[in-house]
Amino acid sequence: MNDTQAPGGPADGTKRPDSSRRSERSRRAIYDAALALVAELGYGRTTIEGIAARAGVGKQTIYRWWPSKAAVLMEAFLDLADQAAGGETGFPDTGDLAADLGLVLRATVDEMNNPVYEAPTRALAAEGIVDPELGAQFVEKLLDPSLQLYVRRLRSAEAAGQLRAGIDHRIAVELLVGPLTHRWLMRTLPLTHEYADALVDYALAGLAPRD
Amino acid sequence: MNDTQAPGGPADGTKRPDSSRRSERSRRAIYDAALALVAELGYGRTTIEGIAARAGVGKQTIYRWWPSKAAVLMEAFLDLADQAAGGETGFPDTGDLAADLGLVLRATVDEMNNPVYEAPTRALAAEGIVDPELGAQFVEKLLDPSLQLYVRRLRSAEAAGQLRAGIDHRIAVELLVGPLTHRWLMRTLPLTHEYADALVDYALAGLAPRD
Repeated sequence: MNDTQAPGGPADGTKRPDSSRRSERSRRAIYDAALALVAELGYGRTTIEGIAARAGVGKQTIYRWWPSKAAVLMEAFLDLADQAAGGETGFPDTGDLAADLGLVLRATVDEMNNPVYEAPTRALAAEGIVDPELGAQFVEKLLDPSLQLYVRRLRSAEAAGQLRAGIDHRIAVELLVGPLTHRWLMRTLPLTHEYADALVDYALAGLAPRD
Repeated sequence: MNDTQAPGGPADGTKRPDSSRRSERSRRAIYDAALALVAELGYGRTTIEGIAARAGVGKQTIYRWWPSKAAVLMEAFLDLADQAAGGETGFPDTGDLAADLGLVLRATVDEMNNPVYEAPTRALAAEGIVDPELGAQFVEKLLDPSLQLYVRRLRSAEAAGQLRAGIDHRIAVELLVGPLTHRWLMRTLPLTHEYADALVDYALAGLAPRD
């Protein structure tokens, strides 16, 4: 690994096609190694040295592309989130709010139950809980962008008259995502599609009887 | 400290009153030291040796009363939860469900914002997230008993016709507690009484307009 080109950087007219493919392979190996180590050792005990050894690249390759352990890990997590979304960057908007929310919450349940996503994300969340600086990065780069997709969907629902007037969209999102995350992080009870459906039902219709 | 009597154990007719007072003082010092260290160092790096040194007792005193670090820490957390509840072991039931839930959620917000409770509890939650065995203990001994108090209050509300028929009480509780915990652990936005009130309002009345 002697490439000085950052992965995903602008194409260099002089570089051979092989070099770019090798960079991409190394980048992928580094992400995979980083996430595996975070899942196995926790965030705190994962090191650049460990990632390099597991990925089969030199330590300098990582330092050439990323300034710090936090930076390479955050990009690995962003890449993981992209993969989890399967290339989807939006939020379904069929006009049926309950159906759209149900689809997204069920997919989130599947993700939380998938060890590939679950183990490293759990380790990152745990570290962010006790390290305010890392927690703020986690929220800014990973959590908030995802919550904003919900907020946008709720705005569209409000425009269609499907939400109570004056609802705080952000709090409304937390009513859906909060219980799911609570059950996931605390492992209180199984995370199932039925649970996701109940959350959508209860959040939209409320717990009190309709008079 | 040469007492062999476990704190809170059955009274021993032969022991002097002084011994019992000294035991109680040591027990309190051990709890305080344990919680302070967990808040400062995290759960993993807190040791029996460290607790003993901070509490000013011998290591053997701790081992005489508790079999393991996990055991002394869990009792320290149970004691902390008792203090946080201010001796209250029930849940208000004035007949006004929204008012009662609002009171409890506002008190929970105050607790989450109080560093004395917040710092060690956050460290315990983080450790439970990555250590399934500790997490299960945390849920069984601390979280579930507290959630059961909500469930009981919701049962009483159902009997009074204040809940939709067929609601799963446990999921209903998570609709209130989940968002609060999410905002607290992830530090996304401020935890305020207004937020607590909005959660009660949204959960009970729902997000969709009433036709």
